[in-house]
Amino acid sequence: MSSSSHPLSDRPAVTVIGLGPMGRALAGAFVAAGVRTTVWNRTPGRDRELIEQGAIGAGSAAEAVAASPLNVVCVVNYDAADAVLRRAEVTAGLKGRTLLNLTADIPERARDTGRWAAEHGIAYLDGAIMTPTPSIGTPDAVFIHSGPEELYRAQRPVLDALGGTHTHLGEDIGRAAAYDVALLDIFWTAMTGYMHALAVAGAEGVKPAELVPFAQGIGAILPPLFQEFAEDLESGSFSGEGNPLTSAVSSMAHIVHASESHGIDASVMRAAEGLARRTVALGHGTDGFSRIAEFLGRR
Amino acid sequence: MSSSSHPLSDRPAVTVIGLGPMGRALAGAFVAAGVRTTVWNRTPGRDRELIEQGAIGAGSAAEAVAASPLNVVCVVNYDAADAVLRRAEVTAGLKGRTLLNLTADIPERARDTGRWAAEHGIAYLDGAIMTPTPSIGTPDAVFIHSGPEELYRAQRPVLDALGGTHTHLGEDIGRAAAYDVALLDIFWTAMTGYMHALAVAGAEGVKPAELVPFAQGIGAILPPLFQEFAEDLESGSFSGEGNPLTSAVSSMAHIVHASESHGIDASVMRAAEGLARRTVALGHGTDGFSRIAEFLGRR
Ligand SMILES: NC(=O)c1ccc[n+]([C@@H]2O[C@H](COP(=O)([O-])OP(=O)(O)OC[C@H]3O[C@@H](n4cnc5c(N)ncnc54)[C@H](OP(=O)(O)O)[C@@H]3O)[C@@H](O)[C@H]2O)c1
Ligand SMILES: NC(=O)c1ccc[n+]([C@@H]2O[C@H](COP(=O)([O-])OP(=O)(O)OC[C@H]3O[C@@H](n4cnc5c(N)ncnc54)[C@H](OP(=O)(O)O)[C@@H]3O)[C@@H](O)[C@H]2O)c1
Repeated sequence: MSSSSHPLSDRPAVTVIGLGPMGRALAGAFVAAGVRTTVWNRTPGRDRELIEQGAIGAGSAAEAVAASPLNVVCVVNYDAADAVLRRAEVTAGLKGRTLLNLTADIPERARDTGRWAAEHGIAYLDGAIMTPTPSIGTPDAVFIHSGPEELYRAQRPVLDALGGTHTHLGEDIGRAAAYDVALLDIFWTAMTGYMHALAVAGAEGVKPAELVPFAQGIGAILPPLFQEFAEDLESGSFSGEGNPLTSAVSSMAHIVHASESHGIDASVMRAAEGLARRTVALGHGTDGFSRIAEFLGRR
Repeated sequence: MSSSSHPLSDRPAVTVIGLGPMGRALAGAFVAAGVRTTVWNRTPGRDRELIEQGAIGAGSAAEAVAASPLNVVCVVNYDAADAVLRRAEVTAGLKGRTLLNLTADIPERARDTGRWAAEHGIAYLDGAIMTPTPSIGTPDAVFIHSGPEELYRAQRPVLDALGGTHTHLGEDIGRAAAYDVALLDIFWTAMTGYMHALAVAGAEGVKPAELVPFAQGIGAILPPLFQEFAEDLESGSFSGEGNPLTSAVSSMAHIVHASESHGIDASVMRAAEGLARRTVALGHGTDGFSRIAEFLGRR
């Protein structure tokens, strides 16, 4: 890398591409930590507040990537990332630099980007952010990374500006995306369940604020059960002693019934109940809920 | 109530009907607390261990209800509860006694049972248990109750044997069931999401034990978000600044894609994505996820 790309060589420099809520949070954390931060976004104007705080607004994506040895991209998905990065002048500008893609997408897109980066002499790390924007720059932030370990180690110090915990999951460039997909699966499914619960409770005259403390109680019992059910799955014990699948099916059927009796769409719970019923029908009614993961994973 | 029904009048007495995993846990906690505990189950033999511990095994449901002033029923659902309770000799035996139904079902079944109890001179409380069997008798147990407040207060002392927290939600007999349905909605939906995540992770070579700590991290961010999203819904702000619905839809689509690219059923996430897409299509793309609860609750 030529020293002209980071003239104040004692000061780390980062470019952030994509200034949605998350990109702005990342860039803001870099600026706050004293990192020389260059920013660019497809739609102009999103950089205003960051520039006031000390960021450097680039006039084009090509100008942006040329400004720093490390380029962090955080846009809606890899189609958007490709639309920015795979233009000839941007790709050329990235040559010899490091690209850290914190955009969420599926593992195969991360692997495809890894191949493209290798072809163009771009050092590539893929990552994902597992916590919401207010966590960025605080100890609560959770980042996962994959790609060459040496490259990760080299970039690790500047990432401290983002706060939180950073975990390198392995050299397979798709691994962070695999974790990300699985974790977002839990997150969005749970949040959809909560939205549905608020709607059903509302139809019964229960206000959101009344449900919250009990909903939080349910939230609190999930982490230990996550551990227990993972062990049940890994050991193949599928222990259902305290809670057989047949009992879960009965409970899910009540939820569908209560929801639909108020005219509320129960399509998510209907699908969940269908999975559980199919698992029971294959002879697993006395097993625990972890059997569903085994059933889903069958080929 | 005749004193013959609880001969050791200084010792509280309870009958537990239904000795599935939860009924056994309840009866075991009563026995452990020194309560005179009579038990009965449709299928014989389930009372063996409890009798060894000091419970009294009744020969019939009618005999069981005649043994105690408070009768706790905990069977799979209200069809099962009705099959036991609405037989003439059992109904007659319950007259003048208290029935606490800790069976999970929908609010309309609880209300229907309330009407039946009133017609037969049975003092009726409806409740639900929000924590798994190992919690019973410990501070972690969570019970919710509804029905006449005075009746609840009268029974409250003996319920201490079950440990945990007990909350009286109101006089509407269906209220505990309404909370129960909403809370189980969150629970089963989240657990189904976790099962699916384990399957998708597995197809990517990520072991359950590797996913667990990160899954627990997702579990830990849910309770504060439950609070935030309830406020968004109640205020009608539907704040989506940090995370617009369009972004959620994109994330959900990745999960469906990643899942189906491994041949894994994604019906639950497809249904969740469908809800989010319909909400976006009605012009709410820049709103936060809480808009989905409002959308689901529309009439
Ligand atoms: N927000 C969170 O709490 C959170 C948490 C964890 C992970 N993430 C992930 O972080 C990433 C960014 O999320 P976000 O919250 O900032 O909002 P977002 O809505 O997912 O992404 C918005 C960004 O994508 C850009 N973009 C969209 N289409 C584009 C295209 N065709 N070409 C160039 N740029 C395009 C937008 O530019 P314009 O301004 O020009 O539209 C904007 O910079 C996503 O992958 C998300 O899943 C977000
Ligand atoms: N297990 C938990 O962790 C948990 C947590 C919270 C709430 N709950 C709730 O507690 C209740 C009981 O659950 P559980 O875990 O004990 O197991 P369950 O499988 O839901 O219920 C089993 C009990 O129901 C009885 N039963 C089923 N059909 C019957 C019928 N037609 N007539 C009479 N009895 C019948 C069974 O008797 P037989 O032995 O004769 O079949 C057994 O006593 C359910 O409503 C459940 O949702 C359970």
